Amino acid sequence: MGDNTVRIGLLGCIRFASKFVRTVTQSSNAVIIAISDPSIETANTFAAANNLSPETVAVYGSYEELLDDPRVDAVYLTMPVTQRAKWAVTAAEKKKHLLVEKPPAQNAAEIDKIVEACEANGVQFMDGTIWLHHKRTVKIRETMFDSGLLGDVRHMYSTMTTLVPEQVLERLTKEAMGLAGAIGELGWYPIGAALWAMSYQMPVSVRALPSSVATNSVGTILSCSASLQFGSTETATAIVHCSFLSQLSTDLAISGSKGSTQMNDYVIPYKEDTAWFEYTSGAKFANLHIGWNMMPERVTVDCSGNEESQEATMLREFVRLVQGIKRGDSEADPRWPEISRKTQLVVDAVKKSVDIGCEVVYL
Amino acid sequence: MGDNTVRIGLLGCIRFASKFVRTVTQSSNAVIIAISDPSIETANTFAAANNLSPETVAVYGSYEELLDDPRVDAVYLTMPVTQRAKWAVTAAEKKKHLLVEKPPAQNAAEIDKIVEACEANGVQFMDGTIWLHHKRTVKIRETMFDSGLLGDVRHMYSTMTTLVPEQVLERLTKEAMGLAGAIGELGWYPIGAALWAMSYQMPVSVRALPSSVATNSVGTILSCSASLQFGSTETATAIVHCSFLSQLSTDLAISGSKGSTQMNDYVIPYKEDTAWFEYTSGAKFANLHIGWNMMPERVTVDCSGNEESQEATMLREFVRLVQGIKRGDSEADPRWPEISRKTQLVVDAVKKSVDIGCEVVYL
Repeated sequence: MGDNTVRIGLLGCIRFASKFVRTVTQSSNAVIIAISDPSIETANTFAAANNLSPETVAVYGSYEELLDDPRVDAVYLTMPVTQRAKWAVTAAEKKKHLLVEKPPAQNAAEIDKIVEACEANGVQFMDGTIWLHHKRTVKIRETMFDSGLLGDVRHMYSTMTTLVPEQVLERLTKEAMGLAGAIGELGWYPIGAALWAMSYQMPVSVRALPSSVATNSVGTILSCSASLQFGSTETATAIVHCSFLSQLSTDLAISGSKGSTQMNDYVIPYKEDTAWFEYTSGAKFANLHIGWNMMPERVTVDCSGNEESQEATMLREFVRLVQGIKRGDSEADPRWPEISRKTQLVVDAVKKSVDIGCEVVYL
Repeated sequence: MGDNTVRIGLLGCIRFASKFVRTVTQSSNAVIIAISDPSIETANTFAAANNLSPETVAVYGSYEELLDDPRVDAVYLTMPVTQRAKWAVTAAEKKKHLLVEKPPAQNAAEIDKIVEACEANGVQFMDGTIWLHHKRTVKIRETMFDSGLLGDVRHMYSTMTTLVPEQVLERLTKEAMGLAGAIGELGWYPIGAALWAMSYQMPVSVRALPSSVATNSVGTILSCSASLQFGSTETATAIVHCSFLSQLSTDLAISGSKGSTQMNDYVIPYKEDTAWFEYTSGAKFANLHIGWNMMPERVTVDCSGNEESQEATMLREFVRLVQGIKRGDSEADPRWPEISRKTQLVVDAVKKSVDIGCEVVYL
């Protein structure tokens, strides 16, 4: 383990954290040195299931103990969303860099507290929105936006839906899901996608679509569509849709003044080792309208190799930033917290629109 | 020319009608025997451009003359939308079967007049929404709906956008475009697609999305998004989007309780001789969320052969119905007028929502 290796501890040992452990294990400049869970049994079971040897990985029965371990540089937070802000602030105060599962908090006020604590303690904050780090995402940015093939964004459509069995829907409480329910847990993705496509220009207004909102008997939002309005003269509109009532769909379609692009797997690509997107630019119907003047162009990105998956590229970016700070070469990058904060502000606005009967909320 | 051949006349000689002429020419049981236009020069030019010989095709300088030609069984109407209802009624009264370019009228009241005239005169009415007749459309119905792979429709997204040069936008007057502007001319497609996916169950309400509406200086609607709400207990929502301000896009995505399907060329397939759609059913993220448990299935439909394009299959259906009536075997099929009428009722409701400040309109 070189001096530059980033030593990571887990706050929370949910099963899903195995993916992160796998990614760290495959990386060359980060290592898991400690895990923790309020239930020591859960932590021990997780250690065994993920081949984390007691000789190299400390297993703690509380988050506090892990945060008091001076060897830990950075922590990955996966506890329930309702507890993330509290522990993120505590971890920052203990000078730990933070990678926090999305959504990182329940509202923007909580994110502000996290970011303030990180700034005060000189540590990096990043949320775990993996797809932003995918090589494909970078490639679309270059191909469609930087090169001008798309032109100005006019209309976007983005979804994140995943089917939860009926008997489980009632167990989705606000304690488990956070106050924004599906809007925070799932809507985070399509809202983030719209912001990404707009280069993080904020919408001027948002509105939940009447009658798109479904809740369970305890009031947790299970399904919601919303429209986001960007700009004043040159306008762009995004429709975002999130639901626990539809089969898995992760569609992203962006229509611009010059071209359009589509994906149906933007959140997690169908396959780990490759991903693609399709686009047209300058498309018209062909003579006599018996077809198009072009076929959609498919751009494929190779992600084979241990350190090319979207998890690996996210970890690499996080590690790069932490290493820079550790070496004293650089300060924390404000870009990632800003992306989290803007995404959360729009999540909050959609939630507010739902609360006030789907009226317009201005940002 | 057999006795069963359907003899067709054109009411209007716009350039676009060449596609229909091409289709009829390639068919084995229909023939163009007359064309007409208020400008005899336009009609003559069209005849020459489309190799319509004066020996077999009568060229008239007025619609009345063509409608008085007793040899004509059926007419294809392509004049501006503002004149279609008037001439469709007149043609029905002259016992001509009707194929009318979409949108067939400016509002549902006009369609009702056309349909009443057709019923009173025992002639078939069909509008020219070609994609409904594509073999792919039939295949999706079988694959996703009839077989249950999609489950209940939960959410739909559909667009028809096509870029009109800025200097032309101001020339899109209500006289040229009809009162509903882009909602009639373009929105007809995504609205029709949502109705098709719902097996022509009507929405309970529609709403134009605030700030999605753009107009030119003479008040013609150039761009609009709307949400359509279906059902009362088991609900489904459609987002439809039409615009003259975005590059060509014709997206149709349908998310259901069990599966989802997508196309980006539902109005006119990229290529005339083949078309495909993709779907997943029972999709989940794979273990550890590093991919999906399946790849999207692509279903390809072969449309090679002169009589397999969507234009040819539409003509075949129209000819089949007309032949049945000519032989006295059957009466006019009420299904096609009903589809036109329902589509127009929703177009009208979206237009009304725009007119009343994007408030909800109940149907």
